[in-house]
Amino acid sequence: MLFRSEIHLLNGLLIFILTLAGFAQTSVPPIADPPNKVASAIVKRALTDQKGYRMLGELCALGPRLSGSPQLTTAIRWAKEKMESLGLDRITLQPVMVPHWVRGNVEAATIVSPAQIAWRSLNICALGGSVGTPPDGITAEVLEVHNAEELQALGEKARGKIIFFNRPFDPTQIYTFRGYGGAVGQRVHGASQAAKVGAVAVLVRSITPAHDNVPHTGNMHYEKDVARIPAAAVGIRDAEFLSRALKQYPNLKITLQLSCQTLDDVPAYNIIGDLVGTEYPDEYIVVSGHFDCWDKGVGAHDDGGGCMQALEVLDLFKRLQIKPKRTVRCIFYVNEENGLRGARAYARMADSLGIHHIAAIESDRGCFTPRGFSVTGDSLVIQKIAGWLPYLQTATIDWVRKGGSGADVGQLKNVPALIGYVPDGQRYFDFHHSDNDVFEAVHPREFELGSAAIAILTYLLSEEGL
Amino acid sequence: MLFRSEIHLLNGLLIFILTLAGFAQTSVPPIADPPNKVASAIVKRALTDQKGYRMLGELCALGPRLSGSPQLTTAIRWAKEKMESLGLDRITLQPVMVPHWVRGNVEAATIVSPAQIAWRSLNICALGGSVGTPPDGITAEVLEVHNAEELQALGEKARGKIIFFNRPFDPTQIYTFRGYGGAVGQRVHGASQAAKVGAVAVLVRSITPAHDNVPHTGNMHYEKDVARIPAAAVGIRDAEFLSRALKQYPNLKITLQLSCQTLDDVPAYNIIGDLVGTEYPDEYIVVSGHFDCWDKGVGAHDDGGGCMQALEVLDLFKRLQIKPKRTVRCIFYVNEENGLRGARAYARMADSLGIHHIAAIESDRGCFTPRGFSVTGDSLVIQKIAGWLPYLQTATIDWVRKGGSGADVGQLKNVPALIGYVPDGQRYFDFHHSDNDVFEAVHPREFELGSAAIAILTYLLSEEGL
Repeated sequence: MLFRSEIHLLNGLLIFILTLAGFAQTSVPPIADPPNKVASAIVKRALTDQKGYRMLGELCALGPRLSGSPQLTTAIRWAKEKMESLGLDRITLQPVMVPHWVRGNVEAATIVSPAQIAWRSLNICALGGSVGTPPDGITAEVLEVHNAEELQALGEKARGKIIFFNRPFDPTQIYTFRGYGGAVGQRVHGASQAAKVGAVAVLVRSITPAHDNVPHTGNMHYEKDVARIPAAAVGIRDAEFLSRALKQYPNLKITLQLSCQTLDDVPAYNIIGDLVGTEYPDEYIVVSGHFDCWDKGVGAHDDGGGCMQALEVLDLFKRLQIKPKRTVRCIFYVNEENGLRGARAYARMADSLGIHHIAAIESDRGCFTPRGFSVTGDSLVIQKIAGWLPYLQTATIDWVRKGGSGADVGQLKNVPALIGYVPDGQRYFDFHHSDNDVFEAVHPREFELGSAAIAILTYLLSEEGL
Repeated sequence: MLFRSEIHLLNGLLIFILTLAGFAQTSVPPIADPPNKVASAIVKRALTDQKGYRMLGELCALGPRLSGSPQLTTAIRWAKEKMESLGLDRITLQPVMVPHWVRGNVEAATIVSPAQIAWRSLNICALGGSVGTPPDGITAEVLEVHNAEELQALGEKARGKIIFFNRPFDPTQIYTFRGYGGAVGQRVHGASQAAKVGAVAVLVRSITPAHDNVPHTGNMHYEKDVARIPAAAVGIRDAEFLSRALKQYPNLKITLQLSCQTLDDVPAYNIIGDLVGTEYPDEYIVVSGHFDCWDKGVGAHDDGGGCMQALEVLDLFKRLQIKPKRTVRCIFYVNEENGLRGARAYARMADSLGIHHIAAIESDRGCFTPRGFSVTGDSLVIQKIAGWLPYLQTATIDWVRKGGSGADVGQLKNVPALIGYVPDGQRYFDFHHSDNDVFEAVHPREFELGSAAIAILTYLLSEEGL
């Protein structure tokens, strides 16, 4: 009954209570099996049924779930019906207004001079949030830089030019997220940096260690009171080609055409499904992913997979007749990619209602074989979770370490443990934000071991508390 | 100079000393950098250059390296020239006579009755070592069993039939090698078991957890004095189809045609390349893989990749100007898949010459992201190696455990540490012994982290001894 009374607190946002059922079972005691037996049962069931993986297949078939898109609306409806069909105790849609950026049909970067290579176009895609170009495009010479310092050093030469940011993803980082972190600044801030020195557009090397030619999109940010110039990602091979060509033809000119635009915000929803705890129903353990994705590929690894793993945790509990002592809450956050509005809205609600989260887990690093859990929390809390390694190893988890959690759960305050699920990361950025991120790129065993790892941790949190 | 004096001990086998160079450098002291610095340099160099990965691409382009095949001969020549081009101190080819089984052009399993499905054929391939069928094939009814007990229970009903072994790979094993181990018996022993009860041929469900229809070959064994009947693997989807069809049509008949045959043994070679130790040249650390593979796919994961990782260890030392204190020996064993003759020949030689191996590492579990090292040895030895985890983690190694090593190094006697390199195993049996095992199935970062992990361990063994 919690949510009915919350409605007025939500600043006019209406929360729909879709299902309120299963409370009869709160009197059933939790299962008495020792954790190693439960862990083993979870792993076997996940690997045998591959149900979360199959749900991901259904979700991906609905298309990419970009904030504001009709595909997102369809997918939200699918998710609500899926949670209903799984018989969760309580299902809630939390309204959230989200940005509505659309790519449009035109994105092209064509070399127009010199004549020797004027037949060639580059494999590009607009960065999320970019303004478009005039219909005839923007035609200008191209200057290559690798960072903000090189851009500044151009001085007046940058005026009227297209700036080509070509800083590579550092392949020597064994944690690929560090490689990403070292290169993504040019994508996020490049356009405004270039506009300040008079540039007319930017091309950005795709942020990936893979050596294909698929452009990788992602969010970009315009600074206030700085001219908004169009920004597009270039496939790696074409970025390398362009860099070579610029050495040979320094006056090389490109026509960039983008039809993307930002429309008015539209309504969307966080999707929340609960298994109500049998002993401490007011203590919440969140398992989550973000439901939106970019419009290249279908967001299988990023992050439809994380959502389906989170949902599968609850469904594995149902399949194995595990009645958690504490409430296990599955959240599909909306609009992580270009706004984080879903996570902020949920965090505000949790804050104003005083929802007592004891832990919040996020899966948003791909659906690969489990390696560890990265925990933001007090050292003694981390030590307690690390003490569960013998059970977590049942799903190939080898470590629990202090570290970052996830962009969405990271918005929550006063949670003893914010936890990021960490699978093997070597292949993630091959797929990330690109046409490569499709259902076929997800391996069923790797995916299901992830579901199982999160389910085991959730079970222990629910049984033991923190 | 070791090998010249060994020739006469080798039972008539001639050892060619191809290169004897670089001994001048034995007076150069080993590098003095601390292990963490060396480990970091190894990882960075491997991930940046991706040289071992590119060598694997060259090797795979030469085709499958089945024992006795012309492709193996070509690849051995390539390997010798590659080792020469890398400037190893000493390169040796050890002659080994290997089996010569050939698949031939015909392999077909066609349903000939009932008429309703007589248009359908099954996706099969001969098991390695199988006899062929007469040119017109063997036509018989099919009986499905899952193990030797069910086969025995058939009694007289098995006479004249094709036995279809359909025991699945257990998907719930998180160590996929256990799933493989639980299913592979039907492939190895099924033909002789079936022949003893009068069957005329066997079909065996492919030993894989993947759900495609690619047949997976592999070795099979005929018992002495038992009739030799043909044996073929069936793709998983067709195995499932056949199982369903047999329920509907118990008298279903198949014509099986195989043109495979075993020819006379032919000469081949183990390929051995050394970096001679600067302080203890007579103490050897082996890094190895097996060079032969099946003739489906090109043996990229199994085990061209393991060989190229072993070779890359020596080349990383060269690139980083690391002069090992002990001799680092790279061995490409021949004929692991259907005879293990290379490993046995090397072990015999090592035994008779008293070659002092302090450790032998094998990479033969695929080229996926590193997880650990599995060590056969005394507990204190394992403890010492486990003490190097802080360095090994630089290449994402999370554990060192007591356990099996590898089929080839396992032939060696009196070695303090026989070590198996253990990468993530979730995808291995998707590729294993099938047309799926191609260069494109190997990920460059995963491969190179494997090379780096083995190189760091080899460096520590070479510096510290055991």
